[in-house]
Amino acid sequence: MKIPRKSGQPLGIAVLGSTGSVGRQTLDVIDAHPEHFRVISLAAKSGSEAFLRQVARYKPVIASVADLDAARLVKTESVHVGFEGLIAASIHSEVDIVVVATSGHDAIKPTMAAIEHGKIIALANKETLVCAGELIMPLAARNGAEIRPVDSEHSAIWQAMGTTPKRQVSRIVVTASGGPFRETPMENLQRVSVSDALAHPTWSMGGKITIDSATLMNKGLEVIEAHWLFGLPYEMIEVVVHPESIIHSLVEFIDGSQIAQLGLPDMRLPIQYALGYPERLPSSGRRLSLPQVGSLRFEPPDEVRFPSLRLAREAGIAGSTYPTVLSAADDVAVSAFLNHEVRFLDIPRVVQRVVEHHRPTGQLSLEAILVADEWARGAALDAIRELRARS
Amino acid sequence: MKIPRKSGQPLGIAVLGSTGSVGRQTLDVIDAHPEHFRVISLAAKSGSEAFLRQVARYKPVIASVADLDAARLVKTESVHVGFEGLIAASIHSEVDIVVVATSGHDAIKPTMAAIEHGKIIALANKETLVCAGELIMPLAARNGAEIRPVDSEHSAIWQAMGTTPKRQVSRIVVTASGGPFRETPMENLQRVSVSDALAHPTWSMGGKITIDSATLMNKGLEVIEAHWLFGLPYEMIEVVVHPESIIHSLVEFIDGSQIAQLGLPDMRLPIQYALGYPERLPSSGRRLSLPQVGSLRFEPPDEVRFPSLRLAREAGIAGSTYPTVLSAADDVAVSAFLNHEVRFLDIPRVVQRVVEHHRPTGQLSLEAILVADEWARGAALDAIRELRARS
Repeated sequence: MKIPRKSGQPLGIAVLGSTGSVGRQTLDVIDAHPEHFRVISLAAKSGSEAFLRQVARYKPVIASVADLDAARLVKTESVHVGFEGLIAASIHSEVDIVVVATSGHDAIKPTMAAIEHGKIIALANKETLVCAGELIMPLAARNGAEIRPVDSEHSAIWQAMGTTPKRQVSRIVVTASGGPFRETPMENLQRVSVSDALAHPTWSMGGKITIDSATLMNKGLEVIEAHWLFGLPYEMIEVVVHPESIIHSLVEFIDGSQIAQLGLPDMRLPIQYALGYPERLPSSGRRLSLPQVGSLRFEPPDEVRFPSLRLAREAGIAGSTYPTVLSAADDVAVSAFLNHEVRFLDIPRVVQRVVEHHRPTGQLSLEAILVADEWARGAALDAIRELRARS
Repeated sequence: MKIPRKSGQPLGIAVLGSTGSVGRQTLDVIDAHPEHFRVISLAAKSGSEAFLRQVARYKPVIASVADLDAARLVKTESVHVGFEGLIAASIHSEVDIVVVATSGHDAIKPTMAAIEHGKIIALANKETLVCAGELIMPLAARNGAEIRPVDSEHSAIWQAMGTTPKRQVSRIVVTASGGPFRETPMENLQRVSVSDALAHPTWSMGGKITIDSATLMNKGLEVIEAHWLFGLPYEMIEVVVHPESIIHSLVEFIDGSQIAQLGLPDMRLPIQYALGYPERLPSSGRRLSLPQVGSLRFEPPDEVRFPSLRLAREAGIAGSTYPTVLSAADDVAVSAFLNHEVRFLDIPRVVQRVVEHHRPTGQLSLEAILVADEWARGAALDAIRELRARS
């Protein structure tokens, strides 16, 4: 048992992205288990009211914000700024686990720093593995650092895998709710509104990830993450649409047995599992009753109506900076959709166009990722302008 | 890893009940993995053609049959007879695992002998734990003997539990197909025929167990077995009806997470898991595809139409010889139903009447179990005569 690691002392937690959805729920979990966890660092972009309240309440050893304007608002002695702040928050000696819950590429550097300092990573940020899995996983292996998934699907696979050795796995099945347009015919898909797309059937999340769920790009990115987290080739990773989001994913073993993890959609469960592992800590949340749910449905994903899944898989297999380009182009296209500049079906069109034009240069590095990201964002804006000019 | 236990040598297997459904499928598993398993003993009731063919093919070190008439038919040097034969087959020095797949109470003595000789028990016989769990489990604990379930539901719970300590389990959910009369109204249930009752929706099994599935008594007995196998109180063991029999059972942990084992209904999977544990060996069987199944349904069991579930739970909680009496009375009542002597709804009536009249005597012992069994069979016949006289 790893908890408590330091003879009876609670584990020190750094929360990067503490005001976001996963960040706040991480603090809920810490609140529920003060004997197991304590806050060492809190990091957010801005000095928002929410962040100031968190700092006042948790009195972190390190508070970190994006810039000096924000820093002036945070009334604590040890306020850090920018990348240096995120890294300081991650590698502080009292930190045992770094919860990486910031959005975007900014998470990659502090995650790498934390790995190099032997911290346990509880990973909620998608870009870290999507863009830099090829760098992160060998780094973690060299440093003997654990990377624990926080995403409900990857947590499910991790839980289902248990202590079974990887050579006994025959495939993993990542479940997808299918989003709000699971049954929308192609002709109507062209006309769906932003508010239609923001109405996710089972999970309440931020705007970007909700649109990514509607296009299934989110699931595509999760396939890439699963590839890196579990070290499995893409042909062993399947996606199945499961509208009720009760089976969070499953693992099939070489004997044909499948082990699935189930639960009500509640992010606190995978967060708590990532912090408390290998111990399962009690939770007071509502329990899943299968008779109450009644039935669970499953269908193959429709890659004609939702080409993002295929695009992501192809980018994953191509490797190098392709997943970065995919993710950055998607980011720009989703923003444009949220701003009513492009239509829903234009999102995968923009992504496909950008990925097709990408040419990776040499060995993958953090630098190459940042360059590819910037290129992809520009190329996506070009693609969007072109689309708008035509329509 | 326990396989191979003797430096490279396959594990020695004793198959008690080798001509029954589980026995034959055990031999299939052994055939598929000759590098892992070899037959040491085969035991069957009669010297049937099927058994003689098995003896000729596997050339067991020990062959065992019920009586001398049967023994004369078996043309092998080392043929044993009766209880002595079952015990000799189980405790032979080359036996590592005893697959207990005989039906009825006769399995208890050889199982106890095998436990005392430190053998691993792969348990497919219901009566062993239902009647003698109170004796078997402490005996296994004292001898450090492993009891591995072969039943698909208990195997599912065992697989789902993984290495998670028992204190982290909040409940287990045993799934039930609901049998062929899941949706049959009460008034029609009175008139169902033997052939209706033998038409199980998902599993192909023997007559007794198929009728027990139709009354849900089978599930009730499994609840009692689960109580002993996993050392959990009855209030932590639930039954959920799941007509597709794809989720074979599940475990809920204190954090609210549920882990389920899924697969196509195929007994070879749990048999192979019990023999190969902790290794999962490859199998060539058909794989479960959830999109192909389409949907999984769940509902609470109807204890008004299927009172056997309640009767079994009550007998389990009462303990001592009550489960023996329940099981023996059910055995007699099901035989009478299969012989068209009583109606379907009479089965739980007979069982209830016998259990209500039972008075256990003193400390539980193997002797007390056999006495209670005999008493219950007589009492059940009386109850049946009474019912027939009245109708």
